[in-house]
Amino acid sequence: MRAAVFIDELEFIRDHPVSEPLPGWARIKVILAGICKTDMEIMKGYKGFKGVLGHEFVGVVERCDDPAWIGKRVAGEINVACGDCRWCAQGLGRHCAKRKTLGMINHDGCMAEYCLLPVENLLIVPEDIPNERAVLLEPLSAACEILEQLPLYGDERIVVLGDGRIGILCAWVLSTVCSDVTLVGRHPEKLDVAAWHGVKRCLWTDAIGRDAYIVVEATGSGQGMATAISLCRPRGKIVLKSTVAIQGEVDLAQVVIHELTILGSRCGRFADGLAMMRKYPDMPLARMITARYPLAEVQAAFARAGQSDALKVLLEMP
Amino acid sequence: MRAAVFIDELEFIRDHPVSEPLPGWARIKVILAGICKTDMEIMKGYKGFKGVLGHEFVGVVERCDDPAWIGKRVAGEINVACGDCRWCAQGLGRHCAKRKTLGMINHDGCMAEYCLLPVENLLIVPEDIPNERAVLLEPLSAACEILEQLPLYGDERIVVLGDGRIGILCAWVLSTVCSDVTLVGRHPEKLDVAAWHGVKRCLWTDAIGRDAYIVVEATGSGQGMATAISLCRPRGKIVLKSTVAIQGEVDLAQVVIHELTILGSRCGRFADGLAMMRKYPDMPLARMITARYPLAEVQAAFARAGQSDALKVLLEMP
Repeated sequence: MRAAVFIDELEFIRDHPVSEPLPGWARIKVILAGICKTDMEIMKGYKGFKGVLGHEFVGVVERCDDPAWIGKRVAGEINVACGDCRWCAQGLGRHCAKRKTLGMINHDGCMAEYCLLPVENLLIVPEDIPNERAVLLEPLSAACEILEQLPLYGDERIVVLGDGRIGILCAWVLSTVCSDVTLVGRHPEKLDVAAWHGVKRCLWTDAIGRDAYIVVEATGSGQGMATAISLCRPRGKIVLKSTVAIQGEVDLAQVVIHELTILGSRCGRFADGLAMMRKYPDMPLARMITARYPLAEVQAAFARAGQSDALKVLLEMP
Repeated sequence: MRAAVFIDELEFIRDHPVSEPLPGWARIKVILAGICKTDMEIMKGYKGFKGVLGHEFVGVVERCDDPAWIGKRVAGEINVACGDCRWCAQGLGRHCAKRKTLGMINHDGCMAEYCLLPVENLLIVPEDIPNERAVLLEPLSAACEILEQLPLYGDERIVVLGDGRIGILCAWVLSTVCSDVTLVGRHPEKLDVAAWHGVKRCLWTDAIGRDAYIVVEATGSGQGMATAISLCRPRGKIVLKSTVAIQGEVDLAQVVIHELTILGSRCGRFADGLAMMRKYPDMPLARMITARYPLAEVQAAFARAGQSDALKVLLEMP
């Protein structure tokens, strides 16, 4: 099959082997795949992954031992848990230490004609959700994870730092529950895209003041982390919403003195993302799509995705 | 009055001026004061404080416009809030941005014959609590702060890193609520002191495994923080219980990937500490007292407090 493979560099390959699905697994014919910042980090060495990239997709089940799945349009949870360990027994498969992760840990991803996942990872995409929305289910579910982790009353002042894909999605998701959400970014054109549901948008500034109950750090930068600490009210919470490593000096003394909480937040449940999509059909997800490229032009697609004005770049499978 | 004053170095001064209390304030004749790690950090430049050191004390009210206070044996909350700002209005005086703090921020401390505090900061020490216990009310209350911040079920596996004063107190306090508390330290003699109420004690090792629901970081070191991250189970919590700056590289990617929570924890309510002291009269607080020195020997006292086997060193006022 044709596939976008990262070994030492990113390559479009015409004859990548295609596997048969194991019992309980499905082979999915991919329709669209999204490029995520994590994919770009993998190409810099993150997680040491080599193989087919990609973990955001929508596709159609093409082969499966359960015939009921054949022909179903699906999205899929990206973590393949072992099912045997104590974390799995506690329903924390997303944290299973032996997990494989689509296009990230020991398992080929979805930037290819086909990908493989256990059927228990799959969600059928309802007909009213077009492919262009369904392909965004993974990052939208990751934004919804915050709602699972944090109790919210609705009147907390929330600041989201970073006007990239995940920052905008977090602002949108939080605006469905809280009335005072401000997205702070450096790109006027991205802040324009983010206009929805009363989300306030402002250019990065130091004049916001120590006033937020919750700051979502979605820049993945050390400066973002320092700003998050400075914006948080005493006993406020900082949600780390970037799997990209923020490695560096963190002023933990401020965390102690102001009794802040820092909360790591990663993948979310796709069912939550799907419910959010259906409840808010006007959430302008398609506005996030900057460009679409055929898989054969994967290198150009990654180059576009890396430009500072880009939000979501999609790959169309052959 | 005689006082231990830090300007450029720590000095015992015989003729430090003594002030009259403001309306609503009390002047307290100090009986005992404790040396805290924060005092030693102040002498290295922490908070830029210059003046009389000390924030742990027990004493007797000697002057006050409310005669009901005169002669009462008291301990005192160390933060003097402005009373006017929004944090104060929300009962968060400990986080008031304009607060003074005894022996730390714009207010002379208690390593002196007299110190001054608003009467609203004072707690009367019941007769059944001797001075040697009462002087430990400040650090014990700080340990109790964890119980205010974290909901605990009682069966969580808890690891406390650091066998210093605050680590031991945290382990003791947590053992009153949770049955599985392990104190990890580098000093066999301090771990011996920590034996109480089923607290498990073990020498620092990497073989503890990623298994703790809650890790209390009480070493104040970067290595402690890294160890805390490595010991915490997915979705576990790290309580930062050292106001001493842990500045340095923190692997926040691990915090995101495992969805950990980092919780800053500082001063506690003295009423909670006092209730803990009364409920557990067998909590062996006196075992923490390594040595006592007269105020005039404050330099020797600090030298002793800085030795690796020392726990609490007390100063006796003239």
